[in-house]
Amino acid sequence: MIGSACVGGKKEGEGPLGGSFDYLSGDAYFGEKSWEKAESAMQRMAFFHAMNKARLSASSLDYVFAGDLLNQCTASAFSMRDTDIPYFGLYGACSTMAEALSLAAMSIDGGYADTACAVTSSHFCSAERQFRLPLEYGGQRTPTAQWTATAAGAAILSAEGCGPYVTAVTTGRIRDAGITDANNMGAAMAPAAYQTISAHLRDLNLQPGDYDLIVTGDLGLIGRGVVMDFFLQDGVDIAPFYDDCGLLLYDRERQDVHAGGSGCGCGASVLCGWLLDGLRAGRWSSLLFCATGALLSPTTVGQGESIPGICHAVAFSMTKG
Amino acid sequence: MIGSACVGGKKEGEGPLGGSFDYLSGDAYFGEKSWEKAESAMQRMAFFHAMNKARLSASSLDYVFAGDLLNQCTASAFSMRDTDIPYFGLYGACSTMAEALSLAAMSIDGGYADTACAVTSSHFCSAERQFRLPLEYGGQRTPTAQWTATAAGAAILSAEGCGPYVTAVTTGRIRDAGITDANNMGAAMAPAAYQTISAHLRDLNLQPGDYDLIVTGDLGLIGRGVVMDFFLQDGVDIAPFYDDCGLLLYDRERQDVHAGGSGCGCGASVLCGWLLDGLRAGRWSSLLFCATGALLSPTTVGQGESIPGICHAVAFSMTKG
Repeated sequence: MIGSACVGGKKEGEGPLGGSFDYLSGDAYFGEKSWEKAESAMQRMAFFHAMNKARLSASSLDYVFAGDLLNQCTASAFSMRDTDIPYFGLYGACSTMAEALSLAAMSIDGGYADTACAVTSSHFCSAERQFRLPLEYGGQRTPTAQWTATAAGAAILSAEGCGPYVTAVTTGRIRDAGITDANNMGAAMAPAAYQTISAHLRDLNLQPGDYDLIVTGDLGLIGRGVVMDFFLQDGVDIAPFYDDCGLLLYDRERQDVHAGGSGCGCGASVLCGWLLDGLRAGRWSSLLFCATGALLSPTTVGQGESIPGICHAVAFSMTKG
Repeated sequence: MIGSACVGGKKEGEGPLGGSFDYLSGDAYFGEKSWEKAESAMQRMAFFHAMNKARLSASSLDYVFAGDLLNQCTASAFSMRDTDIPYFGLYGACSTMAEALSLAAMSIDGGYADTACAVTSSHFCSAERQFRLPLEYGGQRTPTAQWTATAAGAAILSAEGCGPYVTAVTTGRIRDAGITDANNMGAAMAPAAYQTISAHLRDLNLQPGDYDLIVTGDLGLIGRGVVMDFFLQDGVDIAPFYDDCGLLLYDRERQDVHAGGSGCGCGASVLCGWLLDGLRAGRWSSLLFCATGALLSPTTVGQGESIPGICHAVAFSMTKG
């Protein structure tokens, strides 16, 4: 991992991790005329900040793996449109950053690339009007609802470098516990997180404490509790090693985000700022990043479907695996 | 490639390739109550037909790479929800089948999987009401418009087998020629197709005639002409070796599809039926499958953006590369 960067909005800057962002916008527009264009601009900014830190030019990058929450993943397509980099578009809802990192790491380790970028974004305003209601409507939010982060994170992986290293990935299977409340996505995604973290630990014969930190993407308060309960049923207390990006990004009491943060950009920005910086600074020596996604759409909710969840895990270490 | 299958609707069955489908539905519903659920059912059916031909059970598959055109790619998520297979969701618009095949082949060749599936779908009715207008409105279509295929294709790749083999992939870069007419996607995607095919031939030091067939995903009549013109400007006549899935799938004169077929399921079903069957039967010994995607959404069109295109190429041969 030779470079990473994150960009956020005003609210993200006012949260506990505000200092870990490379750029913070004073408004929701990032100099553009629509929220959708703003999201592309924000994602592109995270990408170029990460490339600068990696001392790479776009023309030397072999692949970009990108995704977001907008219909047809247009935030990413328009963000990367002029970069001339071989492009893989992904959709894993809020799990997309871990999906992108998995495929980027596999493409390098498999010998197909020397360098690859994983980049994702979300934007509160573009997401709200697409998934829920016009912002002008001022709809009330339920206590279980999460706040879509206006943020983007980009990470540059290379075959050469001095860490942090991606040491393992575990690809998620879809889990659907039958939850139909689109305002409680933490609970809908938690079974997938439990499944993937369990599978990862079992496959590699590890205990939770073998990582300094296990961090889910954006389960928020409700989903984090469900994951801890699942592990307790197995006789495992993961609480001492476990946190959630949706809870790290905001101050829940002070910032009115209800159950916590969410969105492709939540986990991505926390990872590409606070978490990877912490690995580099020696705050931790290893961590397991488990980004979770709710694979719903307003149409599936309207047609009475329950919410499938997925979680992909990527292990980072300061020593080669 | 140890198994492939395709499933389609009534119109696809009435076209010139009707005989190459594994299953054809008599209506648009595939036994479901909504077009969106029908698309998931159709995709799942293609998947299980392909798995049967490959003599594999779902539990033995290492990865599935899946995508479609619906918002948040829900046709794929709901299609694969109960299969318990590690799942990578992709979005490349109509290029998704080649993107999925590329990543599936790389994951096997890189040593991460023994078997992997690439599966995509599109559905005329679910696509029309999402991208354009309610079907009941009966809007007129322009001569340059293409007809979204109601079809799905699935291909199972394995580290062991006797061909067809994936011998090379070329990952596309986004190209935007400034076209803003969402009813002329063939023209919008053609520059990307030209870029990817040219790069592929240049990288591997090949001439167009080194393939028995070069086939784009769904450029239709307009886009196909643009690609041939681009190559003629380079002094290369690719016409003798070049066709398009959007023109192969339907009889344009008889079936009222205007410029031809389109959609994730168009290229996927033509590849997984007619083309791969033709390789197995000795009709061709090599072909280059170049699926093209228009990375627009109704929102980007509404905000006056032009249409970015992308094309991924996958080379197939009956002899190992």
